[in-house]
Amino acid sequence: MMFQGEEVKKDFPILNQVVNDEPLIYLDSAATSQKPTAVLTAIETYYKTANANVHRGVHTLAERATSQYEAARETVRVFIHAKETAEVLFTRGATTSLNWVAKSYGEANVNEGDEIVISYMEHHSNIVPWQQLARKKKATLKYIELTKDGQLDLTSAKEQITNKTKIVALTHVSNVLGSINPIAELTQLAHSVGAVMVVDGAQAVPHMAVDVVKLDVDFYAFSGHKMLGPTGIGVLYGKRALLEAMEPVEYGGEMIDFVYDQESTWTELPWKFEAGTPNIAGAIGLAAAIDYLNQLGMEKIHAYEIELVTYLLPKLRAIPGLVVYGPTDDSIRTGVVTFNVDDLHPHDLATALDMQGIAVRAGHHCTQPLMRQLGASSTARASIYLYNTKDDCDSLVKAILAAKEFFNYGLN
Amino acid sequence: MMFQGEEVKKDFPILNQVVNDEPLIYLDSAATSQKPTAVLTAIETYYKTANANVHRGVHTLAERATSQYEAARETVRVFIHAKETAEVLFTRGATTSLNWVAKSYGEANVNEGDEIVISYMEHHSNIVPWQQLARKKKATLKYIELTKDGQLDLTSAKEQITNKTKIVALTHVSNVLGSINPIAELTQLAHSVGAVMVVDGAQAVPHMAVDVVKLDVDFYAFSGHKMLGPTGIGVLYGKRALLEAMEPVEYGGEMIDFVYDQESTWTELPWKFEAGTPNIAGAIGLAAAIDYLNQLGMEKIHAYEIELVTYLLPKLRAIPGLVVYGPTDDSIRTGVVTFNVDDLHPHDLATALDMQGIAVRAGHHCTQPLMRQLGASSTARASIYLYNTKDDCDSLVKAILAAKEFFNYGLN
Repeated sequence: MMFQGEEVKKDFPILNQVVNDEPLIYLDSAATSQKPTAVLTAIETYYKTANANVHRGVHTLAERATSQYEAARETVRVFIHAKETAEVLFTRGATTSLNWVAKSYGEANVNEGDEIVISYMEHHSNIVPWQQLARKKKATLKYIELTKDGQLDLTSAKEQITNKTKIVALTHVSNVLGSINPIAELTQLAHSVGAVMVVDGAQAVPHMAVDVVKLDVDFYAFSGHKMLGPTGIGVLYGKRALLEAMEPVEYGGEMIDFVYDQESTWTELPWKFEAGTPNIAGAIGLAAAIDYLNQLGMEKIHAYEIELVTYLLPKLRAIPGLVVYGPTDDSIRTGVVTFNVDDLHPHDLATALDMQGIAVRAGHHCTQPLMRQLGASSTARASIYLYNTKDDCDSLVKAILAAKEFFNYGLN
Repeated sequence: MMFQGEEVKKDFPILNQVVNDEPLIYLDSAATSQKPTAVLTAIETYYKTANANVHRGVHTLAERATSQYEAARETVRVFIHAKETAEVLFTRGATTSLNWVAKSYGEANVNEGDEIVISYMEHHSNIVPWQQLARKKKATLKYIELTKDGQLDLTSAKEQITNKTKIVALTHVSNVLGSINPIAELTQLAHSVGAVMVVDGAQAVPHMAVDVVKLDVDFYAFSGHKMLGPTGIGVLYGKRALLEAMEPVEYGGEMIDFVYDQESTWTELPWKFEAGTPNIAGAIGLAAAIDYLNQLGMEKIHAYEIELVTYLLPKLRAIPGLVVYGPTDDSIRTGVVTFNVDDLHPHDLATALDMQGIAVRAGHHCTQPLMRQLGASSTARASIYLYNTKDDCDSLVKAILAAKEFFNYGLN
């Protein structure tokens, strides 16, 4: 069956509204995705029928809440093909997940003179925790260069990753360039020097099938809210042997075994890392989002996004004065399209598009080092997801042309 | 107007259900509270009309989401009477809030030989972070003793808090004993030796009016899910001067000002602490919960809970073989009632009550040091909230008597 964006859109109540007298066209899913009715219903149903604190109770609601929360973990496990639920930790989001790796694994395993390797296409959440770790441990933070068309430069990767490298931390998909990085190959490179591979999957898991075992990554982080799930929930996948050896980052209820006056012992994985009451409804909402994605099929979703972006890019590139950043090979992209138009400020452009009902993002997209590499202080970004359509793409192109005219760039 | 638990109950859809062929009576609100329709509607409405990422966007939805998220912060500020929203940080919950204080303030300000003072009635979330800090810094962790009837022993407090004390961390209300601690007085004591006062308000903010300025506390932590709000959201209040001087605990997007290749600078309060996409819907749901509580009035809610607990306690104490833990002065209690019946195991009791539709908790309630003080390995706990009624109390008493009979304790 063909994938029909128009049909999918009907499942997302927020998209059926008028903004500034125009039908809303939401092209900001790389910032956060919209939620289908199925996810909202799952959250509401949980609160209306099963809400209780998990793991601690013997009463009926507590058993319901616990079994639904742990079932959500199993849904995540299957979705990313992890071997066991012990390897699936619920966090507040990808940022927390990455911070946990830097804090717990990093502080225990990185020493003076060691090297941490990231790239110039990382989101701040995969830069700043490593800067802090490097500073604290007197380690060196190194950057893999990008090619001219916005891909990870594999020659540079081979140069930067050395036998001093303890951690390689890379994004699976760039939130600006849309580039998909060859993570399996890069993981082999990291492992060949004895480093662990940490992957920021925030822009990948929502858009394509991910298999953490096939990729052989050591840690993999992502957020629920970018994949149709609620805010405030995310995942850290880690290989069991690594997680077993790591200290928890937060301490409190649920994560302990025994608490004596002066010391405590920890419970087993994955709960060792989940101090306090977790975001139970968040986990259940995320599982509902995964069920929804699975029903459509991740391969089909990925193919549909490539279809849309392949439709959109030539039309954008045909607009005089418009520069698209990122790979020219559209097959290694997701639905993220970053661009600038003439010397029109991206904020002005985004405002002009918003007046036409079109939501795009403008700014540095939490990637200031990448902006410096691109020689742009900020850019506009349209990001596509499964509920977008070719009509949305046409509207974007039309609205950019109108904005150019409005700002008197029409005659350029 | 009199407070009517029966009327309030109608606002909570989950409470109108049958469990094990009996109408559900939920007496586990100290673990987590149920959510009124107004909170569920607020979450749904946010996702259906305004969902976008905050702070980063110029389009209409992003502006709506940002203004609703920051309005939620203002609602929290007013509710706890903080001076400014810069002092109100959104976290994952009280556990995260307390961990942040231990990690950021603690690691920067506690040194070898210093003392940290807690009490024997703390929840694990207000014990284990301090154990870890003390171990890391070679500081000493000291406990304030309890009186025989489960109150904080103020003589012991004066002995334990010395000029070596850097941090005093105490619960406002015990999650087991129900005791309300005289935080203003204890804060003066802490300040008189130059220590900061950290308060775990998880069991206080849902049940009584709290004014952080009047209390003069330095840090105050609480969770949304225990006060009719969603899971995955909590608050850390901190005095501006302290928060300004503190390092953030998590690093990533939103919390930075500039990110250079090797170093970064932080943005202003409160966002300096809020790395990554926050739990936007969680904050908005929490604000809706506060609106609901405000509509009923915190003084009235507190008075109603005292009315219920004063009704319940004599009936419980009249049951042969039943021991109630905590203060005998019912006026310094909240609606938490912890007890044991004969040598009936609390888990068996809780299971027997569940068969009669009554949800209570059994176990150590994340307070193992307190359990040792009480000489009990575990207890049963019934905890009351604004949606409970005198009928609920009667049902509990009747069900305990039936359980005693079922387990052949009838003739004791």
